[in-house]
Amino acid sequence: MGKPVIAVDAMGGDYAPSEVVKGAVEAARDLDVQIALVGPEETVRSELEQCSANQTNISLCHAEETIGMEEEPVRAIRRKKESSIVRGMNLLRGGEASAFVSGGSTGAMVAGALLIAGKKKGISRPALGIIFNSPNGPVLFLDVGANSDCKPQHLVQFAQMGIVYMQRIHGVPAPRVGLLSNGEEETKGNKLAQSTYHMLLKNQPNFVGNIEGTELPRGQADVVVTDGFTGNVVVKLSEGLARIFADMSSSGEAGHEGSNFHEAERRILDYTSLGGALLLGIEGNVVITHGKSDASAIKRAIGIAEQMVKQRVMETIGT
Amino acid sequence: MGKPVIAVDAMGGDYAPSEVVKGAVEAARDLDVQIALVGPEETVRSELEQCSANQTNISLCHAEETIGMEEEPVRAIRRKKESSIVRGMNLLRGGEASAFVSGGSTGAMVAGALLIAGKKKGISRPALGIIFNSPNGPVLFLDVGANSDCKPQHLVQFAQMGIVYMQRIHGVPAPRVGLLSNGEEETKGNKLAQSTYHMLLKNQPNFVGNIEGTELPRGQADVVVTDGFTGNVVVKLSEGLARIFADMSSSGEAGHEGSNFHEAERRILDYTSLGGALLLGIEGNVVITHGKSDASAIKRAIGIAEQMVKQRVMETIGT
Repeated sequence: MGKPVIAVDAMGGDYAPSEVVKGAVEAARDLDVQIALVGPEETVRSELEQCSANQTNISLCHAEETIGMEEEPVRAIRRKKESSIVRGMNLLRGGEASAFVSGGSTGAMVAGALLIAGKKKGISRPALGIIFNSPNGPVLFLDVGANSDCKPQHLVQFAQMGIVYMQRIHGVPAPRVGLLSNGEEETKGNKLAQSTYHMLLKNQPNFVGNIEGTELPRGQADVVVTDGFTGNVVVKLSEGLARIFADMSSSGEAGHEGSNFHEAERRILDYTSLGGALLLGIEGNVVITHGKSDASAIKRAIGIAEQMVKQRVMETIGT
Repeated sequence: MGKPVIAVDAMGGDYAPSEVVKGAVEAARDLDVQIALVGPEETVRSELEQCSANQTNISLCHAEETIGMEEEPVRAIRRKKESSIVRGMNLLRGGEASAFVSGGSTGAMVAGALLIAGKKKGISRPALGIIFNSPNGPVLFLDVGANSDCKPQHLVQFAQMGIVYMQRIHGVPAPRVGLLSNGEEETKGNKLAQSTYHMLLKNQPNFVGNIEGTELPRGQADVVVTDGFTGNVVVKLSEGLARIFADMSSSGEAGHEGSNFHEAERRILDYTSLGGALLLGIEGNVVITHGKSDASAIKRAIGIAEQMVKQRVMETIGT
């Protein structure tokens, strides 16, 4: 098997194209991958020149359009055939790339994945997952926004996909599954959570029960499932609180220039700088990087994509 | 009008009865209230003696049972007629008290309020609200757990109740209403949020639209509504993250005993120490204190109850 081909959207994210290209160049240098940079050829080429990149494992895939963050996702995917997201998804569909990494609009990435790359056979609803680093190790939390309204069987499938990811990428032999709810007892939850509870209890030997909001950050389970509405609120709230708390820490300095405060601030923010969201259940490995990703975050995301390809995450899901 | 009578559950909360009685004694000393301490007479009397309390504005209401945190709420309310929660709710129902403050089981308080004090006329679903102190001022967030499954019209009523509270207690003349959702655009949200959006747009002149998780802590609205499942997850997650972040700040100290770190930690935790939840839409003013409340938190909660009575919050809701 040759090097895995990872398509990287040169135009996705707040610091694109320069930080993305830089991160891709570093990944090409240090990882066992072949990178296809997707974007306007001239722009990308001039960025590559600025990095003095001469790696042979970077190729270019021309895409002259960009989908903006504010564009309606489905319409943008349908209309902008020459956009970097549509091009990247076409590389997945055609088998020219095994993974696609982009910091573009999450909505457009999800729409593009569904409309172009397509759902994995056997999966009814692909889900967006994030990894957060709890004091007890990494936790995969999903869905964080691909499906605003869910049925219990969708959440059960999210758990199955999450198990594959945690086994293959984090080497957890028997990932524990938790269900986000508004109380520990099995009688707690809205109708969706209550029905899901009973289905997981029946189908998942490693189901550890309901996880409350208070306990979620502690890492009592390796995979925690919820609907995409609640999951999105949870992830965005965590980010918002991290910023507020970091502000509180640094304004507490009161003129005293201690590096410890910056250290605390950095750790608080790191907690929620999740490296990238994974779209699981697609015919291809899809990683969506955070809009604020710098070169090293892009490189890490490419590393995750590499592992997903090598560990056959996509192939194992839904089988 | 005489002093408002506030019933206080002497047995509610982790530090009951001592901290509760201490807080009640301080409130009786400093506030214009008459306090009815509900609990086992002997226990409460001995606590009062330890405070050397001789206020004439404290009376006792004997209740020999206590409802535990783990008891099934409705069953506990039906069976434990002599419990402090049932007694307190009966004081509201009989008009002997205008407000009831308790740090007991939230579930039992909600069940007791519904079954004994009863819903306010015109209100279909009472809701549990909390106030958090955003950088832009206090925000009332509801429902945080009274109704796990909601309909759009319930959320619209939560907004109406929240407006009354913010006008009467915080003096905000025209409270801005926001809807928690997974995106700013009106097309975002699950089915519940989307329908609620359109109802609020039609009925609430001060509706400011969707509020994302990232923005929730910033205080872009004075009242933010959501269903009780999502609201509960949000409040508990905030508490869990505050603890994790505070741990991160203090372990960053690395042997360096600076008071600044403790200050930051204290502020992070204060952010989520919400003083008390309000159960709005009941025939009576109900304040549920946090389980970890000390005497000064109990006193603050009694002060909130006093203001709710004087500002006629309960009477104004639903009219």
